[in-house]
Amino acid sequence: MSHYATRLHDAVRRTGTPALVGLDPRFERLPAPVVRAARERTSTDLAVRAAAFEEFCKRIVDVVAPLVPAVKPQAAFFEELGPAGCTALERVIRHARAAGLVVICDAKRGDIGSTAEAYARAYLAGADPDGAVWGADALTVSPYLGADTLRPFVDVAVERGAGIYVLVRTSNPGAGTFQDLRFEDGESPKLVYQQVAGVVEELAAETADDQGYGCVGAVVGATYPAELAEVRSAMPHVPLLVPGYGSQGGTASDVAGGFDQNGLGAVVNSSRAINFAHAAEPYAEQFGDDRWEEAVLAATKRMVADLSAVAN
Amino acid sequence: MSHYATRLHDAVRRTGTPALVGLDPRFERLPAPVVRAARERTSTDLAVRAAAFEEFCKRIVDVVAPLVPAVKPQAAFFEELGPAGCTALERVIRHARAAGLVVICDAKRGDIGSTAEAYARAYLAGADPDGAVWGADALTVSPYLGADTLRPFVDVAVERGAGIYVLVRTSNPGAGTFQDLRFEDGESPKLVYQQVAGVVEELAAETADDQGYGCVGAVVGATYPAELAEVRSAMPHVPLLVPGYGSQGGTASDVAGGFDQNGLGAVVNSSRAINFAHAAEPYAEQFGDDRWEEAVLAATKRMVADLSAVAN
Repeated sequence: MSHYATRLHDAVRRTGTPALVGLDPRFERLPAPVVRAARERTSTDLAVRAAAFEEFCKRIVDVVAPLVPAVKPQAAFFEELGPAGCTALERVIRHARAAGLVVICDAKRGDIGSTAEAYARAYLAGADPDGAVWGADALTVSPYLGADTLRPFVDVAVERGAGIYVLVRTSNPGAGTFQDLRFEDGESPKLVYQQVAGVVEELAAETADDQGYGCVGAVVGATYPAELAEVRSAMPHVPLLVPGYGSQGGTASDVAGGFDQNGLGAVVNSSRAINFAHAAEPYAEQFGDDRWEEAVLAATKRMVADLSAVAN
Repeated sequence: MSHYATRLHDAVRRTGTPALVGLDPRFERLPAPVVRAARERTSTDLAVRAAAFEEFCKRIVDVVAPLVPAVKPQAAFFEELGPAGCTALERVIRHARAAGLVVICDAKRGDIGSTAEAYARAYLAGADPDGAVWGADALTVSPYLGADTLRPFVDVAVERGAGIYVLVRTSNPGAGTFQDLRFEDGESPKLVYQQVAGVVEELAAETADDQGYGCVGAVVGATYPAELAEVRSAMPHVPLLVPGYGSQGGTASDVAGGFDQNGLGAVVNSSRAINFAHAAEPYAEQFGDDRWEEAVLAATKRMVADLSAVAN
């Protein structure tokens, strides 16, 4: 059974980039041909949307699979469409795995004891894509409930060669409300997210592969570059998932601190800037709705080139 | 459009109890007749499990609807079964709403910006059971991402007459890992969960109904009675959801501090002790698998009687 971090880093080496493409389908922003095709196949509103999401994401997967190591579907947008959306998510994940991509399901789950285990069993397929209903390699997890509630996720991850990414320092403007509260820890003050980081580092060290990375990762936003570099050095065994690059304002130099000396240890996510490149500068005029996949390709190549200056 | 807290408290007054019945289906613990019936209707493993969950939960709903104000389905157990489980959850929620119960979907969701809004729109039907795919009255929400990430949930809740319950102090043994970190707040030290409680109280005050309760509630565990009483007085506008009673060890006197002077302001959850009463003392011998609904009825009545000493 291959270890999650090993599999991820093999994919990063093979593609030569830490670029992670988020799959964030929003119906109002889909290219017109995708919506038209979905309406020809089915009729009820939710079914049309789910069919369009599935088609849109599968086609993005086909475009980016030769270029990047991994994709990150956002569960919320699929869930909004009900069971039909859940089926679409399942199929998109399956399609991405078949295309050789590592799949990180961004669902930010968390609960206690056997309930946490149920979430883990639902999403963490790990090395075998058929190992769970939603066949992801990894899942994002929220830590607020406490260190004991991460354990069931870690156990399932270890058992299946899967990974988890625990929210540590997120990329939103209000991330600091609770994450940056400063408490006394023996002699020196420490922030809440640093305490979470400490727990995550322990779990990662415990589950490390032969290259020193565990199956327990951390989400640390590109919008806080200083924290990113600090967390990288405080968590040497932890693979990072870095959101906030691109549409949220993070640049390549902002994410530079997330990598180890080999350019590994982090994947950097961009969702909207790639998904909806057909409707944004500089691609809208050249490609537009009809050639939206070329816009996805161009935007992905640009991200890969942009990151090549700071990783690998 | 009726306000969530008003609707909840009307139901508490009508039934005369704050007892909340959790719906936590676990396949291995289902009564044999429920499993048998599901196997007669369908064949693949996930479909059998989903059919059994649906039947089991709907029948619990039928038993408890005349006795209690609300039920709380646990999303994780349904999600473990994939899209078929998601459909079962949808039907169970619909059935419970039709039976006049308030439905709190326990899914502990959380994300940033428009992603949080997608979760809110998926689950928060509010006053109109058809207002969302999963037609719940309320949803549990995780606060780690920051105060700004609660806002989209609150906005949708206000718009639809729905509610949210933010995790504040949970009932698991490791709840304190992050929730109890002590930080300096001006003059006096404060714990992380108290800071979360402060944010929740503000949002509740802002959205209060004419009886002074907001549509933003808090999850506070029965296993920490001192914290429960303290939080009750610090959060006068916040409806509480109290897990940890029953199987997790909380007693009626442990939850007493959760109520206001009118016996309102909190609902107390029991899941396993009611769901699987047929297999536990003192009901196993009398009822067993074949009369499992009578065991559910007896266990619910016992909980209602037990709580009557401390609420209403």
